[in-house]
Amino acid sequence: MERKQEVSKAVVQRLPRYYRNILELKAEGVQRISSRALAERMGLTASQIRQDFNCFGGFGQQGYGYNLDKLIEELGAILGLRAGRTAVLIGAGNLGRALLNNFDFAASGFELLCAFDANPELVGKKFGGHEVRSLDMLYTYLEEHKPDVAVLTLPRTNAPEIAHDLVNHGIRGLWNFTGEDLHLEGLGVPVENVHLSDSLMTLCHLVGMDEA
Amino acid sequence: MERKQEVSKAVVQRLPRYYRNILELKAEGVQRISSRALAERMGLTASQIRQDFNCFGGFGQQGYGYNLDKLIEELGAILGLRAGRTAVLIGAGNLGRALLNNFDFAASGFELLCAFDANPELVGKKFGGHEVRSLDMLYTYLEEHKPDVAVLTLPRTNAPEIAHDLVNHGIRGLWNFTGEDLHLEGLGVPVENVHLSDSLMTLCHLVGMDEA
Repeated sequence: MERKQEVSKAVVQRLPRYYRNILELKAEGVQRISSRALAERMGLTASQIRQDFNCFGGFGQQGYGYNLDKLIEELGAILGLRAGRTAVLIGAGNLGRALLNNFDFAASGFELLCAFDANPELVGKKFGGHEVRSLDMLYTYLEEHKPDVAVLTLPRTNAPEIAHDLVNHGIRGLWNFTGEDLHLEGLGVPVENVHLSDSLMTLCHLVGMDEA
Repeated sequence: MERKQEVSKAVVQRLPRYYRNILELKAEGVQRISSRALAERMGLTASQIRQDFNCFGGFGQQGYGYNLDKLIEELGAILGLRAGRTAVLIGAGNLGRALLNNFDFAASGFELLCAFDANPELVGKKFGGHEVRSLDMLYTYLEEHKPDVAVLTLPRTNAPEIAHDLVNHGIRGLWNFTGEDLHLEGLGVPVENVHLSDSLMTLCHLVGMDEA
């Protein structure tokens, strides 16, 4: 797999969508797909898809379509899904428990090691097979087990301070549900800020357009 | 407010981000901001911001910056946040309860009327002040109260069939957490498909880039 430098953020953000759609096609029994058919399914153009894939050296033969097994393999490698990354979750409230119980971390490239919470009633309990440990033990744990990423499902208060402490204890990426936008690019630490409200406001706008 | 036709989807998807950042600036005590300062905060370019805002007729005077109160007012109107939209939530599992307890629907333009679940143990309980009703009563409720939007926090199984039934009972938009991509554009019904895994896979990729 060749990789051209300077792949844009927009391309990177499309990779998981490609991967997801291709897994779905595979589950539907498809073996091979043209850029045109994939484009139609995803609401993109065929030339956009070819251009995106060319950032990573192609994956297909002109006029012959893409082999799905090969695409899954290549896109999975680019995404780093088999790199054995690990994560801890901080904050086992409703959202944290929803992720612990139902979210397939492995399918997104991470082994979820355990969760942490300050509430003593939750400590020792398991959700989706993941133990909740005391927040007091977090930094000791990070130094011993060196997880790659922290999932922040705790309240917004102090999120920036906590994020910096985590980075100081070796955390290399954040999946951030606190609602507070975190920017740690300066420290070389990627953050995915999840803002569910953005998506609901978009829907609010679109429902209104219907009436215009 | 003038609105030019054919505002692209990319612009629409940036509107909630603008609105969120502007509310945050306002909370920080800022009254007025230049496109350059806003661009820096949001990781965009000043010309992009001016171009986006021009889709809706401007909002600022050249060289004088944007008045935040006016921006909040105008963007809120464009997003339809004060249009009095209503929503129901279907599926009061962990994720549904996380939203019921903690998510500020009003801030995204919706009054959440109530939730529905098939589990008799949940029916009659309240989460975040929102009552859970029996799923058996869903369609009767929709016909009586005519909510605009349904939040799908139920399992993936049968999501497409349920979505079509909801639309047949008057639902005009879906906020979809089932993991199954729903496309109802053909019926004129916007769907926001939330794929948390896309965001975690992006993080997986970005953490790996660090090592390249």
